[in-house]
Amino acid sequence: MKVDGQPFRSIWVEGDGWTVGAIDQRRLPHEFVLAKMTTCEEAADAISSMLVRGAPLIGATAAYGVALAMRDDASDAALDRAYATLIVTRPTAINLKWALDEMRKSLAPLAPSARPSAAYRRAGEIAEEDVAINQAIGRHGLGLIEAIAPRKKPDEAINILTHCNAGWLATVDWGTATAPIYLAHDRGLKVHVWVDETRPRNQGASLTAWELSHHGVAHTVIADNTGGHLMQHGMVDLVITGTDRVTANGDVCNKIGTYLKALAAHDNGVPFYVALPSPTIDFSISDGLRQIPIEQRSADEVATMTGRTAEGKIETVRIVPDGSPVANYAFDVTPARLVSGLITERGVLQANPDALARAFAERARAAG
Amino acid sequence: MKVDGQPFRSIWVEGDGWTVGAIDQRRLPHEFVLAKMTTCEEAADAISSMLVRGAPLIGATAAYGVALAMRDDASDAALDRAYATLIVTRPTAINLKWALDEMRKSLAPLAPSARPSAAYRRAGEIAEEDVAINQAIGRHGLGLIEAIAPRKKPDEAINILTHCNAGWLATVDWGTATAPIYLAHDRGLKVHVWVDETRPRNQGASLTAWELSHHGVAHTVIADNTGGHLMQHGMVDLVITGTDRVTANGDVCNKIGTYLKALAAHDNGVPFYVALPSPTIDFSISDGLRQIPIEQRSADEVATMTGRTAEGKIETVRIVPDGSPVANYAFDVTPARLVSGLITERGVLQANPDALARAFAERARAAG
Repeated sequence: MKVDGQPFRSIWVEGDGWTVGAIDQRRLPHEFVLAKMTTCEEAADAISSMLVRGAPLIGATAAYGVALAMRDDASDAALDRAYATLIVTRPTAINLKWALDEMRKSLAPLAPSARPSAAYRRAGEIAEEDVAINQAIGRHGLGLIEAIAPRKKPDEAINILTHCNAGWLATVDWGTATAPIYLAHDRGLKVHVWVDETRPRNQGASLTAWELSHHGVAHTVIADNTGGHLMQHGMVDLVITGTDRVTANGDVCNKIGTYLKALAAHDNGVPFYVALPSPTIDFSISDGLRQIPIEQRSADEVATMTGRTAEGKIETVRIVPDGSPVANYAFDVTPARLVSGLITERGVLQANPDALARAFAERARAAG
Repeated sequence: MKVDGQPFRSIWVEGDGWTVGAIDQRRLPHEFVLAKMTTCEEAADAISSMLVRGAPLIGATAAYGVALAMRDDASDAALDRAYATLIVTRPTAINLKWALDEMRKSLAPLAPSARPSAAYRRAGEIAEEDVAINQAIGRHGLGLIEAIAPRKKPDEAINILTHCNAGWLATVDWGTATAPIYLAHDRGLKVHVWVDETRPRNQGASLTAWELSHHGVAHTVIADNTGGHLMQHGMVDLVITGTDRVTANGDVCNKIGTYLKALAAHDNGVPFYVALPSPTIDFSISDGLRQIPIEQRSADEVATMTGRTAEGKIETVRIVPDGSPVANYAFDVTPARLVSGLITERGVLQANPDALARAFAERARAAG
């Protein structure tokens, strides 16, 4: 999508044909800084430090990380090493494993001399596939937004609530949850997005608000506590979130707090949709609550907050008293029963095992 | 309760017999600063700027504000002026109106010369009544905690989640939601409190964590998004929150986000209790969602965060991109159907009109 009028993706190969470029998302929204990765280790650091984040973008970055490794050393041992280095960078996102498995499957049969160029080619395909998938998600999700439009007066916006950042910054382009929103906006539908700030890392306030603003989509940032109140008062027409992993039965693992919004949507009859590329579906598990390991991250993410001072300096401040312990669970699981539907590249599906297995029979069979 | 071993209340009359002292709660948790109020206007500012906050403490501060006004000018016109100045400081808390009505009822029949001393006396009684009420809430709520203890192994804590600050800092002493917790702790029960940070003003992270820490109660600060996940995994035995206003039918108006925790508690079979002094009950209304006006506060509370830098300086940082609009609804309403019970000074009551009217017949009749 666009930044200051210029088209951007969240990850790309530089003009030298091999260096990998990305937007340093830790610096947003106050600074727009581009980063370069030249080794597999730098790609791994980019993922674990959240220079890049979002399940699809993590997958693409890991794929390019393997390509960078192959450029240095294309042996079987180096391929194993790259896989091992990258797989441990984040514990929850299924796309990470999917992308690494794809890379290994493509490269393992090849002679080492053929691996570097094949690795860049396959990583590029993974990135392009993500863009195509998100465009398809946008087309399918658009129907949900269009269906609300007739209930609105001409000057009334269609209000969509989202949590965290499942925007183009979380993918290679378009985003998942945002793809239908960008498409609706581009087609002239009057949309307005309630943006959960998404503590503790504030991806909503710092990333979703930033990208919606740059694309010209009307939005309002709210504390995560607010969505229930808005839904009680008819101020939300639709919830669309992204996800880091969906189980075979339709349970949705996403940023901590998603479950609370799903409960509020259910209690108020507000449709709650989850947008996802199919690699996010993990057909090997069917009970999200019991089977998905939930990453615990640093206490500092909760205990401190980083932003811009009145003087324009980026500063980190501590908001929890010294000596008070902190817990930081990064994700939660929304049971399928609370999910109105899953917006995938193959259409809007019901969140149940049959619908998912029918739509993605080849993957369901492979896992089964 | 205690601060650095010294007993404190949240509001008091200084040794001069008329200046009103209070803890400046805007400076916590990083600085412990005492404030003095010498005029009605300063008391009004203390309430509106949230130097003091919490429904019962707002009531006591307003009462002392009237006393300060009477000291300057004890005419009927001055009494009306003090009432008018103080009643507009916060729109939601019912205790504010209750305390002002009590003061007017006591003072209006008296000759102006008798009003100053009568005003201090009545304000002092309102403060003492609050302490006695909270101690009674503590005794009644203790039973709920004691009932959980037999299910625990000897080394296991009873886990209680709370939202915002309904601690002693929100009252004159003991707190409402915290009164049973402090009492349980003092009696040797092993309790652990999950403290919601409570965006946007962070009263949980900055006040509840601070006061629990000073009293030695085990606790962990969490992002507001976290409670649902904890409840799904059996890590919360009981939720206790405070409230700013309860309707005659048991609807609970409390800090924004309370409703989301009530939904999660209901979905996971976790008991959800609300602790309140009976002046918090507004028998004149019976539909919280439609009848309670929800205060909207400054966008800056969401867009910025204040804390302590690594160098020990208190600094405010902006966390929302420039140009992104912000909404800040301060409270929400939890419908009575989600409330397991109301812990009052007259016992633990069901959240329904009959139970409330039976327990507080005199007030229900007066409102009816």
